[in-house]
Amino acid sequence: MAEQARDERFDHLFASTVRDRLDGGRYGGSASPAAEDAVPLTYGFPYPESFPTAELVAATETVLEEEAADVLQYGGGEYAERLHDGLLAREHDRGIDASREELIVTNGATYALDAIASTFVDPGDEVLVESPTFVWSLSVLDNRGAELTGVALDDNGLDPDALEATLEAREAAGEPTPKLLYTIPEFQNPTGATLTRERRERVLELAAEYDFLIVADDAYGELRFAGESPPPLAAMDDSGRVIRVGTVSKTIAPGVRTGWIVAAEPLAEQIGTMVAGGTNTFTQSVLGRYIDAGHYGPTLERLLDGYEKRRDAMLDALERHLPAGSSWTEPEGGFFLWVTLPEGVDAEEMLPLAAEEGVTYLPGERFFVDDSGRGTRSARLSFSHCSPAELDEGIAALARATERYLD
Amino acid sequence: MAEQARDERFDHLFASTVRDRLDGGRYGGSASPAAEDAVPLTYGFPYPESFPTAELVAATETVLEEEAADVLQYGGGEYAERLHDGLLAREHDRGIDASREELIVTNGATYALDAIASTFVDPGDEVLVESPTFVWSLSVLDNRGAELTGVALDDNGLDPDALEATLEAREAAGEPTPKLLYTIPEFQNPTGATLTRERRERVLELAAEYDFLIVADDAYGELRFAGESPPPLAAMDDSGRVIRVGTVSKTIAPGVRTGWIVAAEPLAEQIGTMVAGGTNTFTQSVLGRYIDAGHYGPTLERLLDGYEKRRDAMLDALERHLPAGSSWTEPEGGFFLWVTLPEGVDAEEMLPLAAEEGVTYLPGERFFVDDSGRGTRSARLSFSHCSPAELDEGIAALARATERYLD
Repeated sequence: MAEQARDERFDHLFASTVRDRLDGGRYGGSASPAAEDAVPLTYGFPYPESFPTAELVAATETVLEEEAADVLQYGGGEYAERLHDGLLAREHDRGIDASREELIVTNGATYALDAIASTFVDPGDEVLVESPTFVWSLSVLDNRGAELTGVALDDNGLDPDALEATLEAREAAGEPTPKLLYTIPEFQNPTGATLTRERRERVLELAAEYDFLIVADDAYGELRFAGESPPPLAAMDDSGRVIRVGTVSKTIAPGVRTGWIVAAEPLAEQIGTMVAGGTNTFTQSVLGRYIDAGHYGPTLERLLDGYEKRRDAMLDALERHLPAGSSWTEPEGGFFLWVTLPEGVDAEEMLPLAAEEGVTYLPGERFFVDDSGRGTRSARLSFSHCSPAELDEGIAALARATERYLD
Repeated sequence: MAEQARDERFDHLFASTVRDRLDGGRYGGSASPAAEDAVPLTYGFPYPESFPTAELVAATETVLEEEAADVLQYGGGEYAERLHDGLLAREHDRGIDASREELIVTNGATYALDAIASTFVDPGDEVLVESPTFVWSLSVLDNRGAELTGVALDDNGLDPDALEATLEAREAAGEPTPKLLYTIPEFQNPTGATLTRERRERVLELAAEYDFLIVADDAYGELRFAGESPPPLAAMDDSGRVIRVGTVSKTIAPGVRTGWIVAAEPLAEQIGTMVAGGTNTFTQSVLGRYIDAGHYGPTLERLLDGYEKRRDAMLDALERHLPAGSSWTEPEGGFFLWVTLPEGVDAEEMLPLAAEEGVTYLPGERFFVDDSGRGTRSARLSFSHCSPAELDEGIAALARATERYLD
C-alpha cells in the first residue's frame, strides 16, 4: 500500500522547533504496539477502582447547588479558593511554607512544566535532565527550544558527582551554565528511584554555586507505601531556587487535569504571565469541595494500599518468572519500576514479540536524551494500572518473550 | 508607605520575552479600579442566570455513573469522544466540514491561541492583528515573541485595503510578510463589528497572495440574535489557510474552560505536538453528555434572548443618557459594543471618576498595539453580564462621569 505523501505546503510557516522535527520527534515517543489482549505495563494509569467517584459526584452536586454562578463563571468562587487553601495545606504538611502568591494552579502538571519552560528558556538555552527521565517532559522542554543534556542517575536518584562534572566541564569550556535542572526526586519516572537526603543537599549547593533553578516534578511523592521520605527539595532550600510542580492526577484522578506550581514570589509572578488563559474553575471548585469535605487523606490511604499490593505482585512475579541475568529496582512508592533484562536483549526490538506473548511496556532507551545506547536492555514497567493477577500474567509473558528473543 | 523593591536576584534567568517586560506588560492590561458598588461593564462575563446548571449536574451524574473509570482516566471514554462529535456537528452546521483529525479540543480558546502561536511564531516573527483587538490575545502572542502590527478595522470589520497596504509596504521594503493574521470576524472584541462577506473574500485572497495563515477566533459567532451571518472564513476557504478557534465559554459557561481548534490536517498535526499535556476528560465527558442529551441548542436559544434584551437595554440607555458628540456601534450579537465619547474625553484618565460615579469599563486605547492615541475617546462596554436595569444605571453613571470630566 502506497503511503500518502505529507502535505508540505505550509512547512515554511512553522516555527523553527516544529520545522526541525517534521520528520519525527527528537525524543523517544510513547507509542506502543496495538495489542488488545496484552497486559499493558506501558502507561502510568491509575487502576480503575482507585477513583473516588462517589465523592466527586457529591462534590459536584454541592458546588453547583451552593454557588453555580461562581463555579461556572470566569475566576471561580469560594470552592475554587478552597482548593488553593487545600493545596497550600498539603504543601505545608510536606514542610513547605508557601503563600497564596507563590501557588499557581494549572491545567495539569505537564502544562505547568510548559509554563515554567516558557518563562525561563530561550531557544538554545541549556536545560539539564535526568538520564533517563519522563519522555513527555522531554518533548515539552524541546517545544520551547531547550537544548537538553542528560545527567546520570542511579538507585539513589540523580548523581551529584555527574551533575558537578557536567557543570564544571561547561564552565571550563566557556559555555553558559544551564538555567534549569529538571528532576523527579521522588519515585522517579521511569526508574522509581528516590533522591537521598545527602544528594539533595549537594544538588541544592550546586544550584547556588552554578546559579541555576531546580524544577522538582513531584507527581509521586505522596504515594509512598513503605520506608521514609526525605524532605522535598523546596523544604530544604531557603534560596528560592526550587520550583515545585504537583498534580492530583495520581492522588485523585488524571481526568480532572489539575496541577500546580509552587515557586518563590518573583518567579511565580512571571510564570503566571506565561500561563495562557484561565483555569477550569468548574473542576477546581469540585476539587476544592472534595478536599474541604475531608476526602483527600482517606482516598490516599486507600490508594497506598492498592499500589503497594500491585508493586508486591510485580516484584514477586519478576522473582518467579524472569531469567537469570535480569535485575530490577524496588521502589517504595510511585507507579513504576525499571527492569534490566539479560545481556543480548534489545527491549525496543523485542517489543513486538512481547506484545505477541501478551505484554507491552516502554523500552528504556526512549527515556534518554542521547543515543548512547543506555537503556537498551531496560524497560519501564508500570504496576499502577493492572490487577495483581494481570501483573503476574504480564511478567510471565515478558519472561517468555525474553527467552524466545534470546533463543 | 514605601513600596517593597522587586526581588531581582533571578532576573537574568528569565527568557528574553519575560525579561523585556519586567517593568510592565507591553500591551494594555485589563486591570480595573476596585469599585464594589459600580456597575461592571468591564469584563465579558456571561450573566449569572445564563448557566445551564441543572443540565450540567445531570450530565456529571450520568457520565460518572456510566463510565467513571474512563471519565477520570487519561484519554477519557465514550462521552469525551461525543464532545468531539458534537463540536464537529456544530462546525458542520456553520458550513465547515472537518474530520476528527482536524479537531483539537483544548483547555480553552486562549490556550488554543497559545498553542497556535507556539506552532508558527519564532521570536521576532510578524503577526498582524486587528486594531483594536482583544488585549489578552495580544499578551499571548507577545509571550511567543511575536512582533505585532495593527490593521485598521471599522464597522464592517477588518479593512482589507489597510491589510493590503500593510502587506505591500512590507514587501516593497523587502521585509518578510507575516505568517499569521489574527482576526475576530464575528462580533469582534472589543468593537462588536462583523466582517462582511465581500471583505472575507478579499482577506482570503490576500492570504493566498501573500502566503499567510488566518487565525479566526470565533468566540461569539453563535451569539447572533439579529440579522444574518456571513459564512465563517473557513467555510469560504478551500486552501487550508484558515485556523478556527472556538470555545463553549459563551454558549455554555466559562468555568468549564473548554475550547477547540479546527485546522487542515497538516497544520492540526503539528499544533497537536505543541499542546502541552492532556485535556480535562472529566469536563469533556460532562460536556459530551450535555450535548448528547440535546441541551446545546435550547440553552443557546435562551441565551440569545437574554443577550438581545441586554443589548437593547444598553442601546436604549446610551440614547437616553449620553451627551451630544457620543457615538456607539450597534452589534447584532456577541457581548460588547464600542462607545466613543465627545471630543476632549480621555477614557483612561476618566476611569477613576467613572468608578466614583458608579460604572467601570475598559478604556479603548488598551486594545491597540501601538501608541497612536487611537481609542483615547473610546471604551469597550460589555452588555453581557448585568441586568437591563443595571445596564441603565451604568450608562447613566457613564454620562454623569463624562459631563463632570468635560466640565
